[in-house]
Amino acid sequence: MRLITSLSEIRSLTLDLRKRAAPIGLVPTMGALHEGHLSLVRRAKSDGAALVVSIFVNPTQFGPSEDYTRYPRNLDGDCEALAPFDPEIVFAPKASAMYPEAFETYVTPGNVAERFEGAIRPGHFRGVATVVLKLLNLVALDVVYFGQKDFQQTAVLRRMIADFNLGTRVVICPTVREPDGLALSSRNAYLGPEDRRAAVVLYRSLSRARELFHGGETQADALAAAMRAVLDAEPRAKIDYAAVVRPDTLESPAQITPGCVALVAARVGPARLIDNLILGPAGASDEDLIKLAITSS
Amino acid sequence: MRLITSLSEIRSLTLDLRKRAAPIGLVPTMGALHEGHLSLVRRAKSDGAALVVSIFVNPTQFGPSEDYTRYPRNLDGDCEALAPFDPEIVFAPKASAMYPEAFETYVTPGNVAERFEGAIRPGHFRGVATVVLKLLNLVALDVVYFGQKDFQQTAVLRRMIADFNLGTRVVICPTVREPDGLALSSRNAYLGPEDRRAAVVLYRSLSRARELFHGGETQADALAAAMRAVLDAEPRAKIDYAAVVRPDTLESPAQITPGCVALVAARVGPARLIDNLILGPAGASDEDLIKLAITSS
Repeated sequence: MRLITSLSEIRSLTLDLRKRAAPIGLVPTMGALHEGHLSLVRRAKSDGAALVVSIFVNPTQFGPSEDYTRYPRNLDGDCEALAPFDPEIVFAPKASAMYPEAFETYVTPGNVAERFEGAIRPGHFRGVATVVLKLLNLVALDVVYFGQKDFQQTAVLRRMIADFNLGTRVVICPTVREPDGLALSSRNAYLGPEDRRAAVVLYRSLSRARELFHGGETQADALAAAMRAVLDAEPRAKIDYAAVVRPDTLESPAQITPGCVALVAARVGPARLIDNLILGPAGASDEDLIKLAITSS
Repeated sequence: MRLITSLSEIRSLTLDLRKRAAPIGLVPTMGALHEGHLSLVRRAKSDGAALVVSIFVNPTQFGPSEDYTRYPRNLDGDCEALAPFDPEIVFAPKASAMYPEAFETYVTPGNVAERFEGAIRPGHFRGVATVVLKLLNLVALDVVYFGQKDFQQTAVLRRMIADFNLGTRVVICPTVREPDGLALSSRNAYLGPEDRRAAVVLYRSLSRARELFHGGETQADALAAAMRAVLDAEPRAKIDYAAVVRPDTLESPAQITPGCVALVAARVGPARLIDNLILGPAGASDEDLIKLAITSS
């Protein structure tokens, strides 16, 4: 496991790696690694990929009033957490190297990035898409691993990869949850005990939509209303949005079909949390639901 | 020489090509090939590159009132012109393959694309940068060749290649001119005989700036005013801009130094024409001036 911060070094190392080992798999992260990230790492290893993990808190995806400066950073702890997986390279560049003074070219995603997170966090997906494109170019990789938890992000990035003919294979791994259902997130660290207990309401609202869908409800409006009702009953949660959407465009069809995705975002105390569930046949595994969402795009 | 229109085919062919021959060089064109394009092809061949020439009239770089539909197209003639250079691949995709219905992700260049051509042709460089990024990704190439004539385009694309960490080497080849100095352009075909004679005024205005620079004039304003005076004396020419700028940002410094670029654009009859000269030591070759512009960036 080599810790690399230099852009020219990561490029030459991955070009060398490419010659002796394929495929190269990248797990891009902002660090503060938890079991969700590690599940991506585990999947890349089980795919036989030469593993590159990037750790970079990307300034361009944070709004001016967001938590860029207080976002948790723990490079030593992250490297310890990664060591058992024996990655080839941990790439942790400096912001000044990724964005030198003259930097001014961005990726501008389209409609898929305008709603939900994009509406609430203007410029967020521009920053995400730009940094991911840069990472894809720096690491001469074959496969990139994303977590399902940031579902809209996976849709924006899949669209970018297709639109720019990048030819990169995308693997989406299921959301990892706490025993009570709360999706793992580095931002859960912001939650005090009361808010932590309240935060499970996101998962409960999604579960309610899933339960209704399995019971035969296919009206998008009815499913969204049921999610809202669950969220409204928790005074510590303030809804940003709750909707059921197509997995590719994130538009809401009137009628929900298998592979559509229930999305929710809410503020709970100091944390802004997001979560989602893919709707499909009862009993389908998370992996099958992800396949369903991708192929119904 | 294989003529390829399919995106999946160009990708697999260039990946194969990469295994047996390096470097791969791409000359991206909009077809209607003239000696200017062929000088890029010649340079790629003399560099020993496995040559890929793309021919694609890119709709996203034309404004709604511009000449996309009437832009000259002559694929058979282009292939004939290329045959003596024995390119590995001529890539001529359909617009519907490059931009399928769901396409919506673009490259947004920064300040370097806002002035001059960018100010007059809103969205032009967004389209140029996007299509070039797509071509760079489809053709697994090492070197890309651009003509100096579209100087701002080379600056926008060099910025994109650096900002996105593409690692592609850029070669800029000198503008090829008619005996009277008019820069070769596919749009010269729009000129009737009177306008054709008048069109040389662009080159004359640039030559005047160069002459004054060689004579010791380094005030950007004075050089631009002299260019305008030459253009104003030609009633068939309507100036869009005339300026002397830094070669990287295209900003006008007060004092011009070697490597700065005189830029001009004017409408002559039905054609909108652009041209430029890099200012440097008297007697420097075109290639040396290009090196000077790139290294003084």
